Parts: sequence; structure tokens; C-alpha cells
Amino acid sequence: MPNPFKLASRECKAIDTVIDVGSVRIGGGSLVVMAGPCSVESEQQVLDTARSVAASGAHILRGGAFKPRTSPYSFQGLGEEGLRYLVNAREKTGLPIITEVLEPEEVELVERYADILQVGARNMQNFPLLRRVGQAQKPVMLKRGFANTIEEWLMASEYILAEGNANVMLCERGIRTFETMARNTLDLTAIPLLKRLTHLPVVADPSHATGKWYLVKPMALAAVAAGADALMIEVHPDPDNAWCDGAESLTPTNFAELMPALEAVVTAVGRQMRPTPALV
Amino acid sequence: MPNPFKLASRECKAIDTVIDVGSVRIGGGSLVVMAGPCSVESEQQVLDTARSVAASGAHILRGGAFKPRTSPYSFQGLGEEGLRYLVNAREKTGLPIITEVLEPEEVELVERYADILQVGARNMQNFPLLRRVGQAQKPVMLKRGFANTIEEWLMASEYILAEGNANVMLCERGIRTFETMARNTLDLTAIPLLKRLTHLPVVADPSHATGKWYLVKPMALAAVAAGADALMIEVHPDPDNAWCDGAESLTPTNFAELMPALEAVVTAVGRQMRPTPALV
Amino acid sequence: MPNPFKLASRECKAIDTVIDVGSVRIGGGSLVVMAGPCSVESEQQVLDTARSVAASGAHILRGGAFKPRTSPYSFQGLGEEGLRYLVNAREKTGLPIITEVLEPEEVELVERYADILQVGARNMQNFPLLRRVGQAQKPVMLKRGFANTIEEWLMASEYILAEGNANVMLCERGIRTFETMARNTLDLTAIPLLKRLTHLPVVADPSHATGKWYLVKPMALAAVAAGADALMIEVHPDPDNAWCDGAESLTPTNFAELMPALEAVVTAVGRQMRPTPALV
Amino acid sequence: MPNPFKLASRECKAIDTVIDVGSVRIGGGSLVVMAGPCSVESEQQVLDTARSVAASGAHILRGGAFKPRTSPYSFQGLGEEGLRYLVNAREKTGLPIITEVLEPEEVELVERYADILQVGARNMQNFPLLRRVGQAQKPVMLKRGFANTIEEWLMASEYILAEGNANVMLCERGIRTFETMARNTLDLTAIPLLKRLTHLPVVADPSHATGKWYLVKPMALAAVAAGADALMIEVHPDPDNAWCDGAESLTPTNFAELMPALEAVVTAVGRQMRPTPALV
Repeated sequence: MPNPFKLASRECKAIDTVIDVGSVRIGGGSLVVMAGPCSVESEQQVLDTARSVAASGAHILRGGAFKPRTSPYSFQGLGEEGLRYLVNAREKTGLPIITEVLEPEEVELVERYADILQVGARNMQNFPLLRRVGQAQKPVMLKRGFANTIEEWLMASEYILAEGNANVMLCERGIRTFETMARNTLDLTAIPLLKRLTHLPVVADPSHATGKWYLVKPMALAAVAAGADALMIEVHPDPDNAWCDGAESLTPTNFAELMPALEAVVTAVGRQMRPTPALV
Repeated sequence: MPNPFKLASRECKAIDTVIDVGSVRIGGGSLVVMAGPCSVESEQQVLDTARSVAASGAHILRGGAFKPRTSPYSFQGLGEEGLRYLVNAREKTGLPIITEVLEPEEVELVERYADILQVGARNMQNFPLLRRVGQAQKPVMLKRGFANTIEEWLMASEYILAEGNANVMLCERGIRTFETMARNTLDLTAIPLLKRLTHLPVVADPSHATGKWYLVKPMALAAVAAGADALMIEVHPDPDNAWCDGAESLTPTNFAELMPALEAVVTAVGRQMRPTPALV
Repeated sequence: MPNPFKLASRECKAIDTVIDVGSVRIGGGSLVVMAGPCSVESEQQVLDTARSVAASGAHILRGGAFKPRTSPYSFQGLGEEGLRYLVNAREKTGLPIITEVLEPEEVELVERYADILQVGARNMQNFPLLRRVGQAQKPVMLKRGFANTIEEWLMASEYILAEGNANVMLCERGIRTFETMARNTLDLTAIPLLKRLTHLPVVADPSHATGKWYLVKPMALAAVAAGADALMIEVHPDPDNAWCDGAESLTPTNFAELMPALEAVVTAVGRQMRPTPALV
Repeated sequence: MPNPFKLASRECKAIDTVIDVGSVRIGGGSLVVMAGPCSVESEQQVLDTARSVAASGAHILRGGAFKPRTSPYSFQGLGEEGLRYLVNAREKTGLPIITEVLEPEEVELVERYADILQVGARNMQNFPLLRRVGQAQKPVMLKRGFANTIEEWLMASEYILAEGNANVMLCERGIRTFETMARNTLDLTAIPLLKRLTHLPVVADPSHATGKWYLVKPMALAAVAAGADALMIEVHPDPDNAWCDGAESLTPTNFAELMPALEAVVTAVGRQMRPTPALV
């Protein structure tokens, strides 16, 4: 292999990395669910979503304040205002928050608010950004680029680890193929491959991968059966009027139905659902 | 959509197709497992494998007698002699048999021995073959071509259905992508998509898709969680000395461990493992 | 490499294979152009097209009588009647004809009419068909499967060569990728790779690859610059009313303009346009 | 189309954009060749390469000072020192220089030295970087992400154009597919598609796309035949000892042979090679 990864490898560290985010532990056997809207739209939207996913047992609140958008003419996120809404929701519900950071200069700001820093698929090989989050004090979730190999993904995690941040998790979110019925092809085979190659926790995002809400539940169950440590699920109180990615968002009701189904499968594979940290 | 499929569609037939193969029913809720060697190598090898997978609860015996091989210089299968070995194993174990047919002229011969006719990935758009198995009296399992869209796959099933054979099942076996760590990328999203679009049973083949035995169990579990009606699993009594695809074959011991794990997951999603028809 | 090709390799035969089709020589330096409609629709349509492409300097007439169609409900070709129309056009114009054969049983029939047997992309790994055309007396043009590697393609040619038919040419016609603006992605890099690996002539089909008539000329010129021995170009007297693939067909006028442009490029790379065999 | 590009479109501006870089004009008919090493290794290496490619007729000197590398343990470039070596070579030869910029904060520094700012494939959707180079005073060459669609590529150029920088050129450098014989699949069909959709100049990079020096010449010729306005070619005085990408680098001798071959093809398609600005 031309690019041997070191710090990310099982050879370097045999035991699973477990990442503590408040009282939530990611990795190490139990299943963690991150849920929330694609983008933060208003204080009320985030709070309503946070309360509903917390009531259903979610562990972490997701929501985008800085949005990477294909078009410069699309909504680019609320920025720091959005981060404040997320913090407000955390205070009201007890759910830690994960949100995306887009550039090295933004890391300091985002780190002041977020509990987990997300590096998105388009930035998987943004090496200055990887180095900068490697110097952060918060855990990092590194999404797989939609055309990146597993080897490249592990090498990207190596950039973060090499700067001293040991709390890295990897998130599979679908790769680009010729098939167009789903937005991307969720590569679940990556999960057992990663569990063999690396000690880092593995997350799956069936919402962005499929782009269709009715595919989220079966693919979430499949990801858990394949060994995922955590899931990332989009939930929106009113998907038809979401500012982005409404077609892939679950309603709070759909999400409430998903959680016990996930618990049944994770139990069937000899693991367990983690208790929610929510103040509910 | 430029090529609307008709007979395969839910619009044409809302209720799930259930295919009876002896006492085995494929589709309709319970899980069916097909297991056996990639290729028939000898009477003893097939019989030993059949007995061991039957003892573990498998429902159908798989084994190739006519093999499509990339190289003309590779082993091409035992032909009719291999079919006789499969029949012998069926008589001794009670397991119905599935085997591949490569060309229209061969269908009559294979149909005399096999319980299910398999059309392989490379032949998914071999239209004369599709028409010919459409005239056969036996059920057909149509594997997805490794670069074919779901729409093309359904159109290929339409060729079979249009000739009058209503007993068609579809088998996802991985698609070609840029990722090379596994042989192909198992597209499990195809399963819930197909369940929505068509009434035909859906099978998954994690062995050929991944090409690595240690990926078979997690991907088999994931396929069941995603909604597969049946699985196709390669089992060989001595994978290190298999004439083809040994690297992806489970040992009888691995397979024996897989079956209860599958039962746990299929139960968790509200379905059940079908009782084996084996004389054990 | 797991599947070393032998007879197709430069190691086996260093000098370029040159295939004689009547007075047309494919391979060996000069450029050959095959042109004609996607499918044979009527005696008049074929004859008109043949006369116009012959007048513009084409060397071989293409036209499908047996058509592989994604849907069983699409036009499947005129069959033997279509072959007779092609022969009629050959007699009137002097252009040898190339046409597709879909199954082993059809080879004998098609061989009686055609000068070159075409094996289409969907049949690149239809091994019984490859063996059967390997026993034919006519040259074979083997199209690359749209998801097949160059290695698999050479191995497929090996099936034909191993049966004794040394007159095989390879036709690049685009591969499947995530890009959807053109129908497929014409992989012109395959041309110099093949010229290095094999002695067999290499053809490019920019019409099927791109699916858009206005991309045919630049991609045809590019294929010649990359080293193609021959081109396959769809021409239809009335593309708007073609029974298949009209969007990618050149009008006779467009084709007449293409030919001198091709001659300029082939001359620029130190080769030459072959004289047409047409009785014009 | 969900993301209509505006400023990049032919609808917005029908006439070709021509970018002046010193006395070199990119776009508008004549062919421009950028050549040089993958990475700047030493003052002497850059100067030697610059002199040899200038003597052969190249127009612009390329060389990386900030290198995006898959592994954090690989050579990451000489940084500002490398930029000074490039400027030294420009002063000695008269060739303008193009070099890559990796992050927004670096733009100011790189802009002080370079004549053209290159945004690499991995940063095609690094939106903060796109915005920042959109505010720069120097032209930008935007490479296509190896898994990005043409539509996304045009939308990425829109980010730059929307900030006020009208001097954007697009560089095709290969996309990821299942084929592994060449590093990537050079998508030359993108060239005529882009020429139809946008007024921006189009560049092709056959060196990075193929990864093999012996494929560079045929693919460079093909790119010109397909309509490329400029080429980017890796040249290294000693490829066997290059610090990166030696396998794809031409020797100065190979490059000297390439230039008249390019001139022959560009003349054949009715255009011409631009005179070199070099002080030779």
C-alpha cells in the first residue's frame, strides 16, 4: 500500500477508541444516534426538533450553521447566529451538538459552541482544515468524500490524529456511482472493513446517502446490523418546507418509530442502545 | 422514465410474489438462505457441503456446473456431470438446488436437473437467454449486472415475465465503483427501492459482492435488516483449496455460526427464518 | 495480473494485426470509417444511407438487424429481412457490411450475410457467443462492456482467438460513470493502452458513447488523435424520425463534413485515410 | 436543472472569454501549453526545467510549492521558498507561472508571486477558497474534482465569477471510475460539452489524469483535437528521481518531441499554436 496509515491503524492501537461527549460515549459497543435538521433555520425550529428527537431517545443534536452549497446562490447557513440557536437547544434539552466547520479560520469560532466538529464530504481532503481541527480540543467527525477510497479516508484521519487530536470518528455517507435512483450509494461494506483496519468509531448517514426519507429506516437498520457505532439522521418538523434536503428528512413521528426499530436490531447483534442524555 | 416496466411493477401487482420451490417459499416475509460452493468440484464435495449447510438450517443448495469465467484458460465447470452431483445431493438432503445457465441452448438441459435457474450478472442483458428462461417451467433468479441500473434490471426481469414465467426473483450482488478494497460495492439501498417498485422477491449475495469471507456475515446481516427475502452464501468445506472464489467462501463452521445470527436479526425486524426443508 | 491474456498480447505477436475485409484493411496505419444507421428500418433507408456515406468516403456500412434493447416492448430489429437489405446496399455501393449478432445460434445465419460480426457491449462476457464467433470465418468486432476493465476486454478477445479466429478488433464505446451529461464516458485512454498491450486493431464509437450528435465530431477527431484504427459513426437520413438513437445520429450532411476533418487529423498524426472501396 | 449557473453560461456571455497572462492569451483559438514539474524541488531543478520547456515552445511554467498530499507523512512542498524559485525561473525565461493555492489564508501570499492561481481537484468544492480567489486580481485555473459532475464544476466556477474575478479557466484532469490501468479516466467529452455551455477557456491535464508518461502524448493530442484551449503537462529533468509523480512526467526530450506533434494537430483542426513568450 503506497500510503500506510499509522495512528489510525489497529496495529498502532488494538483497542477501540471510545469518544466521550458529555455523558455520551461513541464507540465501544452501544449505539448512538445523532439527529436534527440539515440546516438551522430558526431558534424555534431547532428547539422543537431537539425536543422531539430527545423525547424519542436521540443522543446528539445535529444542525448546520455553515452550509457548503453547490450553488453560490443557495442559502449558505445562518452562521454564528445558527450556532447560538444550537447552544440554546442544548441548554434546554441536554443534547450535545455537532455542526460542520468549513475552513481553518472558522474552527476557533465553531469550537466555542459545538461539542463535535464535523468535516464534510467535500472537505475530506482539505488538508489545512484537517490539520486545524487536529489542533482543536473537540472531537471531530470526518465524513467520507463521495469519491474517496477507504484508504484515502484513513489517511485523511491521519492528518487529524497526527496533530494530536485522538478523538476522530469516521462517517460513511454514500459514494458516487452510475446508479441514480438514490442520491448516492451507501457503502455499508466500508463499516466492517473499517472495524478491521482502524480503532476509530464508525458512523453512518443514511439520510444524505439516499436522499429519500423512505429509504432512511431500512438503511439505518442495515448500517447497525453491519456494525455502525452511531447514526446520523435528518429530522425536520416540516420536511416539505425545509430550506434544504427536505426530501430526505424524517418527520418527528417517523423518527419516533425508527428508534425502537434500531434498538431491536442493535440488541439482535449483541449490542445495546445507549441511554439518552436528554433532560426529558 | 423512458422504459416503463409493466409486469414487474407494483402498479401491475400490488401483492408480493411468493415463489414455491418444493416446500420452500421465497418471498412473503420469511427468510430463505441458499448456500453451497461456487463451483461443483466433485460428488463428495457437493454432498459434504450440502449436508453441512442443511444441518445448519439452509434452505436451498447452490453450486455452479456451468461457470462463466473471465479467462478461457480457467476451469469452466463440470457441466452435466456437475448437475448430476447436485441432484444426488438434493436426494440425500432434501434441499432444492439452484444453478446457473449460460446460454439459451443449455436451458432445456439445466431445467431437467435444477429447481431454480440462475441468470448471472454478466448475462443480465443477454436478451435471448432471458426470453428462453421466460419459457421455462422453473423459477428464475436474475442477478443484477455489475454496472446495470435498477431500472435496467427491472426491464430485464420484464423480458422473462413477458414470456409467461411469473416466478422471477432479483439478486443484488454488488456493483462496480472506484473502491477496490472489496471486490464490488454491495448496493443494499437497492433492496428497499425494489421492495417499493416491484412485487418480485429480492435476494442478496454478500459473498460475490465482497469477495472476502470476513465481510460476508456483517453484510448478510445488513441485507436482512434492509429487507432481503433471501440470501446466497458461498460455503466450501476447504476454502483454501477451492477451485474458484475460495477467498469469499465460509467454512461450514462459519456458516453454522451465521445462521442463528441471521435468525436474530430477521426476528428483530418482525419477520422469521423459514424452517429448513432438509431431511436432517 | 490474475488473468494473463496470451494470444492477444504483444508478447505473443509483436506486429499489428491487419484485418482484410474485401479491399478494406483495418489496422496497420490507415484510418477506416464505418458508418450507417443504428437499426435497419427499410430497404430504402439503408440504401440511401449507404450511398450517402459511400459518397463521403466511408469504408464499411453499419446497421443493426438484430437489436439488443433494454425493454422487451421496444423495436427488436428486422432480423433476416434487415440482413437482406444490408446485402442489397453492399451490392449497390461496394461497401462491406458489419452487423451485430446476439446469440450463438444466430451466428451461422448472420455470417452468411455479414462481412464483420459485431459482438455488442452487453455481450462482451457472453462466453458461449464469444466461443461461437471464434469458430466463424468472418472477422469479429468486440465492443467493450460499459463496465468492463481493459483486462477483462482483452480476456474476452482471448476467448475468440483461442477458438482459431485471429481477426478480432476491439471497439471502445464508452463506460459508465457518475457523469450523466453524455450517455457514457468515452475512455479514449484505452486506445493508447491497448496499442501497447495488444496487436489487435482498435475502433472507437463516439456515437453510442456520447449519445449526442453534436459531440460526435470532436470525439471522433480525438479518437483518431489518440490512435484509433477505425471509427464507427451513426448516420441516419432523418435522425428526428429514427426508430432508435436518433439523438446521436449525424445527418448525411454532417457526415460529409466530418470526413475531411478526420482526414486532416489523421494526416497530422502521420497516418492517412484509407481510400473508400465504394463504387462511386 | 436544479442549480442553473449564470455568469459562466453562454446565455450570459456568448463570446469566448480570453484571459491575458502577460503576453500569453488563453482562449480564443490558439493553443497554450503549460509545462513544468509536479513539485518545486530546488532552484536549479525549476530553472533547468523552465529553460528546457521554454526552448521547446511552452508558454507557461507550472510547479507546485504548496502540495496537497494524501498522506501527512509525504513531502508537502517547499512553500514560499518554492514560490521564489518559480519567480526566479520566470525572470530568467520570461514564462509566466501557475501554482496551486490550498487555503483562503494563503491566497494573498501566493498571489504576490504567481501569474495564475490554481485550485486543485480536491478543493473544487472548497467554497471559502473559491470565494477568496474570486476576490484575487490574478486569473484562476479551477481543476475538476475527480468525482464532480460538469454541472457542479460550472457551479464552482460561479462562486469565483460571482465575487468579481472574470478570469476563470476550467481544467479537466480525469475522473474516478472502475478502470484502474490509468490513474483516472480523462473525460475528454467534457471539453466539447463545456465549449457549448460556457464561454470560459478549457484546459486538459493528461499527466495527472493518466499517471503514465507514455499515455501523455496521445491524450494531449486527443485533448487538442477535442477542442482544448490549453494543456498542462508535467516535465521533469529526471523523472526517475522526482519527489512526486515521476511516473507521469515527460523528460525534456519527450516534451520537445510533443510540441511539434501538438502543433500539427492544432493546425489540422483549423487553429494554431500560440508563439512562446520565452526569452529564447
